[in-house]
Amino acid sequence: MKWIEDSCPVLDKGFEERALERQSQLTKPPGSLGFLEGVAIRLAKLQQCDQPTLDRVSITVFAADHGVVEEGVSAFPQEVTQQMVINFLSGGAAISVLAEQLGAKLEVVDVGVLEAVNPSIIVNQQHELFEQRAGAGTLNSSKQAAMSQQQLESSFQAGYDTIERAVTNDTKLFIGGEMGIGNTTSAAALYCALLGLTPEQATGAGTGLDSKGIEHKTAVVQRIIETHQSCENNTLEWLRCVGGFEIVALTGAYIRAAQRGLPILVDGFICSVAALCAVKIQPATSEWLFFSHVSAEHGHRTVLKELGQRALLDLDLRLGEGSGAAIAVPLMRSACALHNKMATFSEAAVATKI
Amino acid sequence: MKWIEDSCPVLDKGFEERALERQSQLTKPPGSLGFLEGVAIRLAKLQQCDQPTLDRVSITVFAADHGVVEEGVSAFPQEVTQQMVINFLSGGAAISVLAEQLGAKLEVVDVGVLEAVNPSIIVNQQHELFEQRAGAGTLNSSKQAAMSQQQLESSFQAGYDTIERAVTNDTKLFIGGEMGIGNTTSAAALYCALLGLTPEQATGAGTGLDSKGIEHKTAVVQRIIETHQSCENNTLEWLRCVGGFEIVALTGAYIRAAQRGLPILVDGFICSVAALCAVKIQPATSEWLFFSHVSAEHGHRTVLKELGQRALLDLDLRLGEGSGAAIAVPLMRSACALHNKMATFSEAAVATKI
Repeated sequence: MKWIEDSCPVLDKGFEERALERQSQLTKPPGSLGFLEGVAIRLAKLQQCDQPTLDRVSITVFAADHGVVEEGVSAFPQEVTQQMVINFLSGGAAISVLAEQLGAKLEVVDVGVLEAVNPSIIVNQQHELFEQRAGAGTLNSSKQAAMSQQQLESSFQAGYDTIERAVTNDTKLFIGGEMGIGNTTSAAALYCALLGLTPEQATGAGTGLDSKGIEHKTAVVQRIIETHQSCENNTLEWLRCVGGFEIVALTGAYIRAAQRGLPILVDGFICSVAALCAVKIQPATSEWLFFSHVSAEHGHRTVLKELGQRALLDLDLRLGEGSGAAIAVPLMRSACALHNKMATFSEAAVATKI
Repeated sequence: MKWIEDSCPVLDKGFEERALERQSQLTKPPGSLGFLEGVAIRLAKLQQCDQPTLDRVSITVFAADHGVVEEGVSAFPQEVTQQMVINFLSGGAAISVLAEQLGAKLEVVDVGVLEAVNPSIIVNQQHELFEQRAGAGTLNSSKQAAMSQQQLESSFQAGYDTIERAVTNDTKLFIGGEMGIGNTTSAAALYCALLGLTPEQATGAGTGLDSKGIEHKTAVVQRIIETHQSCENNTLEWLRCVGGFEIVALTGAYIRAAQRGLPILVDGFICSVAALCAVKIQPATSEWLFFSHVSAEHGHRTVLKELGQRALLDLDLRLGEGSGAAIAVPLMRSACALHNKMATFSEAAVATKI
């Protein structure tokens, strides 16, 4: 785990300056492409090039089960985690459809689904399963630490390895996704621990609890943070005690992506908590993060505000899997195309502002 | 102009019902694809099919000049209208880049640019110029009617003809765009006249006025609506008196698209006023409209609220040309792909809600 402390690339400021200058010369009123101008400029800076591109996008869904599900915090049964892993690999899930639409390869990393998936079920050449199991689900975090130190390190390593593969494939943008029945409970507890939100602020319907279910889940979140008060300000300890394996793996992936100079597009409620942990552990990660959407999961808007982040989309998505990030990729591709291909005022002989 | 009163297609409700049913069976928590679920369901209803598609999208930019520019209401000189038409056709403008990215053909219809464009300048086979000029710009609407009845009808006809071409090409979605230095002033005046907004509520920076410029423009908007008070509730008369030709053409195109059963994706501030006019003239048009984005142009958020419409994007775009709509197309394509290609719970053998 010593790699967590590795530094991120030092960026030549020239690329950002030239991108800013170019945006001011394109045939449009200054600033009229709004948030997309900033996206193009940031990508030019992070990719260290004058023509940013997102032709190759890499999507990895980390899947794991959560012991806290035995407290009755989810609207769906726990076996759905494994069933959805199979669905990802068979091409029937939202993220599978979106990956195909983007021309992106979809990886699924089993970091600790209750029961391992039989790899022979893979029928789609574009989708690949990796087994890097830290265990058969976490323990119940409302009663004990979700995982051991060794399991924490194994999960981090899964994130690290994912990014090393992505870099080898010359990917231009990393999207992490997650699958894990119960993981909005774990994420909510981490938000309370790390951002000081109340359980009421951080707890939502997840896959579809009613108001009574949310009330119960809020109490469980409260119990989780009380159980692990001794973690204090130690992000790694909070991750270990609350889990799950997939949130730890995402955290590791985000840190490693930043270290390898790979821009990151963060999905929704769960991924944002991993992004928060990554920044707490390695603050330089922050510069590499783009936020794709404001989730309809209660609390996510508050979280983005606390993080000072603006997201590309606000469409009441709350599916997870990395789906919101995948849906936002075409916007970033448009930002690149506009930046790279529009004519300047002088090229097009268009008069500038009076 | 008798065609304006033609009715819109009667829709078989079965397609909407089946789309709703299918959304509830796809492998995701119910409602978790948020606004995109509604987009897919509406497209299935409007396209009268079980597998909605937006493979062929048609983009037409209507360009014209505005006499009111002599009041000093724009940050850019009037010749930019013609220069940008040339830029559209040469492939250097934002909408040209976006059309190429979408695989869409871009048409530019000159409905009354001050000086006609020489058609020989077209270098890009994907972009086509149509000349259907109602005049060499409108008259100054702060002093007199912007156009004659004949010019109004000619502009409407340009919209009608555009849609007939689009239908012949079997397009699945119509995007209208506009170019006309001064047209935020005309649009603001129409919003005041038709929605009862105050000039302060409806007047913004356009291509980039400072606060003093906005103050002056607001006074001009006030003068326009005072000059034409006798139009009362007559939308066609307001269109004739305020202009411009491109707003009238867009209005005609939207009405005709609805009549021909072609879904419409509305761009920003200017296009929304044409959509408003279209609905006032032919209320059934409303069902065929999708709104792509909340423009950063002051007043657009209020307008969408007044119209009870939710837009797909909110990215501080304010470029016009149809660019915001083009940027939103991939979201609608994702909505279709998810609807058509995701597995159902039973197909994927995934357990449903507890």
